[in-house]
Amino acid sequence: MQLARIVEKLGGTLVGDGSVEIKGLGSLAEAEAGDISFLANPKYTSAVASTRASAVLLARDWKGECPCAAVYVENPDRAFAEAALLLSPPPVGFVPGIHPTAVIAPDAKLGEGVTVGPHVVIQPGAVVGDRSVLVANCYVGHEAVIGCDCRLYAHVSIRERCVLGNRVIIHDGTVVGSDGFGYTPDKHGVWHKVLQLGIVEIGDDVEIGANAAIDRARFGKTRIGNGVKIDNLVQVAHNVQIGDHAVMASQVGISGSTRIGRHVQLGGQAGLAGHLHVGDGAVVGAQAGVTKDVEAGSFVSGYPAMDHRKATKAHAHLMRLPELKERIKALEALVEALQQRGDKA
Amino acid sequence: MQLARIVEKLGGTLVGDGSVEIKGLGSLAEAEAGDISFLANPKYTSAVASTRASAVLLARDWKGECPCAAVYVENPDRAFAEAALLLSPPPVGFVPGIHPTAVIAPDAKLGEGVTVGPHVVIQPGAVVGDRSVLVANCYVGHEAVIGCDCRLYAHVSIRERCVLGNRVIIHDGTVVGSDGFGYTPDKHGVWHKVLQLGIVEIGDDVEIGANAAIDRARFGKTRIGNGVKIDNLVQVAHNVQIGDHAVMASQVGISGSTRIGRHVQLGGQAGLAGHLHVGDGAVVGAQAGVTKDVEAGSFVSGYPAMDHRKATKAHAHLMRLPELKERIKALEALVEALQQRGDKA
Amino acid sequence: MQLARIVEKLGGTLVGDGSVEIKGLGSLAEAEAGDISFLANPKYTSAVASTRASAVLLARDWKGECPCAAVYVENPDRAFAEAALLLSPPPVGFVPGIHPTAVIAPDAKLGEGVTVGPHVVIQPGAVVGDRSVLVANCYVGHEAVIGCDCRLYAHVSIRERCVLGNRVIIHDGTVVGSDGFGYTPDKHGVWHKVLQLGIVEIGDDVEIGANAAIDRARFGKTRIGNGVKIDNLVQVAHNVQIGDHAVMASQVGISGSTRIGRHVQLGGQAGLAGHLHVGDGAVVGAQAGVTKDVEAGSFVSGYPAMDHRKATKAHAHLMRLPELKERIKALEALVEALQQRGDKA
Repeated sequence: MQLARIVEKLGGTLVGDGSVEIKGLGSLAEAEAGDISFLANPKYTSAVASTRASAVLLARDWKGECPCAAVYVENPDRAFAEAALLLSPPPVGFVPGIHPTAVIAPDAKLGEGVTVGPHVVIQPGAVVGDRSVLVANCYVGHEAVIGCDCRLYAHVSIRERCVLGNRVIIHDGTVVGSDGFGYTPDKHGVWHKVLQLGIVEIGDDVEIGANAAIDRARFGKTRIGNGVKIDNLVQVAHNVQIGDHAVMASQVGISGSTRIGRHVQLGGQAGLAGHLHVGDGAVVGAQAGVTKDVEAGSFVSGYPAMDHRKATKAHAHLMRLPELKERIKALEALVEALQQRGDKA
Repeated sequence: MQLARIVEKLGGTLVGDGSVEIKGLGSLAEAEAGDISFLANPKYTSAVASTRASAVLLARDWKGECPCAAVYVENPDRAFAEAALLLSPPPVGFVPGIHPTAVIAPDAKLGEGVTVGPHVVIQPGAVVGDRSVLVANCYVGHEAVIGCDCRLYAHVSIRERCVLGNRVIIHDGTVVGSDGFGYTPDKHGVWHKVLQLGIVEIGDDVEIGANAAIDRARFGKTRIGNGVKIDNLVQVAHNVQIGDHAVMASQVGISGSTRIGRHVQLGGQAGLAGHLHVGDGAVVGAQAGVTKDVEAGSFVSGYPAMDHRKATKAHAHLMRLPELKERIKALEALVEALQQRGDKA
Repeated sequence: MQLARIVEKLGGTLVGDGSVEIKGLGSLAEAEAGDISFLANPKYTSAVASTRASAVLLARDWKGECPCAAVYVENPDRAFAEAALLLSPPPVGFVPGIHPTAVIAPDAKLGEGVTVGPHVVIQPGAVVGDRSVLVANCYVGHEAVIGCDCRLYAHVSIRERCVLGNRVIIHDGTVVGSDGFGYTPDKHGVWHKVLQLGIVEIGDDVEIGANAAIDRARFGKTRIGNGVKIDNLVQVAHNVQIGDHAVMASQVGISGSTRIGRHVQLGGQAGLAGHLHVGDGAVVGAQAGVTKDVEAGSFVSGYPAMDHRKATKAHAHLMRLPELKERIKALEALVEALQQRGDKA
């Protein structure tokens, strides 16, 4: 698409050659000739001069040099997203209907306009709401309920009796409703399985990434609130409760019965012990190890997790520990010398 | 079910209205009207007063107030589990037999009463023992052997020649027998694959969670002992040996050739370096980074993992490092002043 | 196979009974009667005396006692690998051809000698190169491109429009091209999905372990270079760029837009924040938490990651923090006493 036509649609001010043909998109560092790029994060300011892009979207107040066509817009990030839509192929479509290789129990209930792809299995008593799409090779267990307008990508498992709200998106390979990790030891240290009789209940507008695992409750429900976003490879143990609009990055692990408040944010690889409460709006840093309750609105990090500013300061000092030790050693020598001088005096 | 009838079956002492209809179960915090709850962990004592449950199972010696019907029993935890069985729907059943969409090699051997669900693939030379259930979309590789009374949930892969004992349960998406991570670099730093010629051998009564990965040995066996319990998303590298009745929580990672003793417990997200030995009965704390052998019966935590009490003390001090630094600074000033005073004297 | 025949093929010097029948292989600790073992890592020197193996491969200059037949060779590690090939069953073979249960879009293009196993799904517009093997239950999305001589094990998902080079191996359950984790909050803290319009592009000779997740780019490409090796359960976020011949161990997590240089090595469970640059040849230790750029050729570890030697020293001191605190306390008392003495003087 010609640059001039893109600018026409985005509504910015073009400085440079509008006849150049734009074929793709990329960050300032990765873009090549024929690509359009953008500057939104000030961290990348210096990358403008060296970009190989054919055009760059810049803020209206940007003063620097641009080695190619410049397009001045209100919000370069949003404009880039719009340009991406113009330049990207349309999203992949799935034709509604039941693929003949799908295996669907006679008493399962499918809503209107449902898409059931190849090799999907739907067990007895399961329900799939209107317009939901099960892409391929998915498993929907006995009496599981999937809401309307959901999308399950390939190899997703929704185990028996679990319940999904509306507009839930689950990426490939994720498991909802595997048994919680519960055993009691006998006097020989042999572990005996504790039946996991509960379910997982997922609210509306939830998205879960690839290869995550959400365990069913020991009894009652493991509950994922409305609008929650869960990244790839996350572990949610039995009886965990996640409040509305919480988000958690990849490889987070939440132990059993911990309650996560509304609008909480958990950084990548953070781990939370069991039976804790993380208050509304709290933020947990990446790789943090949370061993006790977290107050609403606070920001904790480190292991064991503590106030983020304290943790940052403590870790900065950690690096200087060898130096501190030397200072203590020097002080000990000085004090020893002072004592001896005093004793002589 | 009426509360009186539940109490009749559990054998406790009821104080309150036995005619109330109990429909579900929940923790003290989550239970709603119509639910029965319980108090076992003293941590939740204060939650009794504010529960919305219609009945609570309490220890016989409990003295507090209860805002609803109270049922006094020997062991509230066990009684709650029994109540859960009474109130839960029966476990899901799979009708024995071979689903017509399963693809089974002609020379594969299936025992009596085996269930092979839809879209399961069983390769040549594989064996499945009596009464084992392969739920759906499972993959059983060439010459793999699965014992009796096993259950493989959807999307489980058992790769070629791996061997499972009896009564093994594997949850959805777990992979047994993927290649170990072995490469040798040439002088240009290009990595060349080292063939992974061994297998995985799993003992009896093992349970493995969802989306875990157990690698086959370089040669010989990666071995999981009897009664071992492995949680979701755990990584077991090639040639690892896990002793009987060891348990490991979610997202644990064990590097190549490390040997885990009997009855060892590994906390969530713990990581173990390769070629180590963890002695029988040792406990490794959550998120610990184990870089050397762990003695039998010891409890280690932290990074690098050390004696748990030492680690806890060290980490507690870590938070006070900035304060310690200030104290050193103050001492230095004082000693400097003392020296000057001494010099003058 | 008789030991003498193995020695004949490997070319070493045999001291002991060559007529013993060798049936298997194992490490010095695990080998049993009938097995051959080897000593390459000096750490295991003491294990020779107690091995139950029937034969051990030893370096030519080895001087110790051997309780069984000894075979002296140039390189015991390599000789053992050769012995493993002699003693192992041949690799599993897949007969080329399209399994009748595979569901392949009419306009998908399959090269010569392609193997498409049972229950594989190939969507419209996809391409599979010559001699590639899709073992079973794999999913290849719309317009995805798979090169020549690739192998995808069971339950692998290659999502729409992603591109794989030649000789790529992907183990069971891994997902390539799931949506990146991108949302923007509105003023109510409700998260709105940012469309992920890009793809994943994977170079030649890449191997990816089981149950890993590689996210598609927000726009443009998440790029995995040539010869890269990725272990099980690794997370690669959107727009990450991985240089040629980089390797990363299990459970590593790389956040969005981070660029990993050529020949970089990432240890198990290491986590990298977003928008960072890790220079060529850098090494990141296991469990490290990388929060800023890493220089080419450097070795960092710990949290937050710093120079490895500094980190090791700092962590060693961490364990001695309680002792340091005691020393500060003692100094404070001494200085206080000195001051009082001075005041009196």
